[in-house]
Amino acid sequence: MAMADAYQIQSNGGDSQSKPLLELYVKASGIDARRIGADLFCQEFWMELYALYEIGVARVEVKTVNVNSEAFKKNFLGAQPPIMIEEEKELTYTDNREIEGRIFHLAKEFNVPLFEKDPSAEKRIENLYRNFKLFLRAKVEFDKGKKEPSRVEDLPAQIKVHYNRVCEQLSNIDQLLSERKTRYLLGNSMTEYDCELMPRLHHIRIIGLSLLGFDIPHNFTHLWNYILTAYRTAAFIESCPADQDIIHHYKEQLNLFTNQRETLQSPTKTHTIPEKVLSDIRVKGLAPDVNVH
Amino acid sequence: MAMADAYQIQSNGGDSQSKPLLELYVKASGIDARRIGADLFCQEFWMELYALYEIGVARVEVKTVNVNSEAFKKNFLGAQPPIMIEEEKELTYTDNREIEGRIFHLAKEFNVPLFEKDPSAEKRIENLYRNFKLFLRAKVEFDKGKKEPSRVEDLPAQIKVHYNRVCEQLSNIDQLLSERKTRYLLGNSMTEYDCELMPRLHHIRIIGLSLLGFDIPHNFTHLWNYILTAYRTAAFIESCPADQDIIHHYKEQLNLFTNQRETLQSPTKTHTIPEKVLSDIRVKGLAPDVNVH
Repeated sequence: MAMADAYQIQSNGGDSQSKPLLELYVKASGIDARRIGADLFCQEFWMELYALYEIGVARVEVKTVNVNSEAFKKNFLGAQPPIMIEEEKELTYTDNREIEGRIFHLAKEFNVPLFEKDPSAEKRIENLYRNFKLFLRAKVEFDKGKKEPSRVEDLPAQIKVHYNRVCEQLSNIDQLLSERKTRYLLGNSMTEYDCELMPRLHHIRIIGLSLLGFDIPHNFTHLWNYILTAYRTAAFIESCPADQDIIHHYKEQLNLFTNQRETLQSPTKTHTIPEKVLSDIRVKGLAPDVNVH
Repeated sequence: MAMADAYQIQSNGGDSQSKPLLELYVKASGIDARRIGADLFCQEFWMELYALYEIGVARVEVKTVNVNSEAFKKNFLGAQPPIMIEEEKELTYTDNREIEGRIFHLAKEFNVPLFEKDPSAEKRIENLYRNFKLFLRAKVEFDKGKKEPSRVEDLPAQIKVHYNRVCEQLSNIDQLLSERKTRYLLGNSMTEYDCELMPRLHHIRIIGLSLLGFDIPHNFTHLWNYILTAYRTAAFIESCPADQDIIHHYKEQLNLFTNQRETLQSPTKTHTIPEKVLSDIRVKGLAPDVNVH
């Protein structure tokens, strides 16, 4: 298959012929088609596939695609990333349900606890991102024309309500993590809930700082420790777009002016957390490197 | 929520406050944003929701959205249709897995057999559309510059192989239907498999005729009878885009010249089948109106 705009960015080809080879096509950045874009579903499946690759269950190749290119449109005829291809079986999975179905069956076959169910964790995370988007949209609209994002204290009540909801939900997750005392949401290994939540928290953080003058409250120590866990998880790091590509993605959707800071800068990834928070984590003995015996 | 480019095209508002109201946002046609576009997942979920609406389980509103409009981008920040909103619960389902999950739970709650499993039916339908797309792409490429689509007999072997696969898979489905003697794939009521297969068969038919000089072989009487069933199923008819909108969708993906026939014509829907096939169906006593006692 000829793909003029596809660049292979990760290949974990082993010598085992028995392992299925899964190719994942992810959306490229609008800045540079060789870079990963900020599509949340793409990162979610990439993380799940990475988990299967890490324990030797599958071979995985990830390719970025420029969805606006003629080559992509012709090859996939209207399908949008994430798209997964399993050439040996002549199967193309163009639907999130199908992609998850295939990963689910592989995980089940090899007893990988990637899809354990936990309704209470599910409940805590389901509304967070929706509410963040409502807050983002309302505040960006309110700040239109201003040089700097307004401060939370200066927001009118109808925008503050969105802010409060986001904080409340972040607090709920912080609470859950403090009760469970686990590295990931359900335990000491990553599940689909982490593949969903980690990228969303990272977007909230990057977009909060760059567009909203908002940071995840520093007193949510357990939540910050969880974010730190993401920054130390290979599946997350590998699949994470650069800050500039995340910012560019949201600016495009919000119809905001993209400045040269994002498009010309060398891509960087914020994978550190504030010093004060890090020190709180250490004091409470939460950091993974402190916990290791 | 202000949506400059959203037009409400169907509203089944009842007086019952207890029924959940589900709003489905579907992709608009590239010809006219008030018309339904040819996105297969949108039609699939629309049909499923229609099934719930018909038996009084849910209220359903469907809205077409112009995905290129600034209003849409701002409202949904990068999410693509189908998108489902349940305002009472403050939930937005932007992922096919989430949409299906919600419909699944509603169907389960009210004992609607929409999601019965049948691996053998699933196996028969899974590769059909992929193979049709491979055939379409190869033949359109081969026919480039020709006034009329080439005849199947004149195709080189490497394109003929795609043609043969499509026919083989259509034949398998015809066979399955002839063995089961049921109105829908699994029985006498519609399931998710029909919501998946019916729109795909209709696309194959419309695009086959307009771009490929290909028709579903007329001797597949049971398959044609199944297509006729689609054309007599309200869930399918209501959610079905016009021929012109289907053709426009594929031409756009294939980078083909769109002529005024599609863009200026009044929209029409081919919901009839060839006379000869209809007569075979009658002779074999398969037509729904003949079967009714």
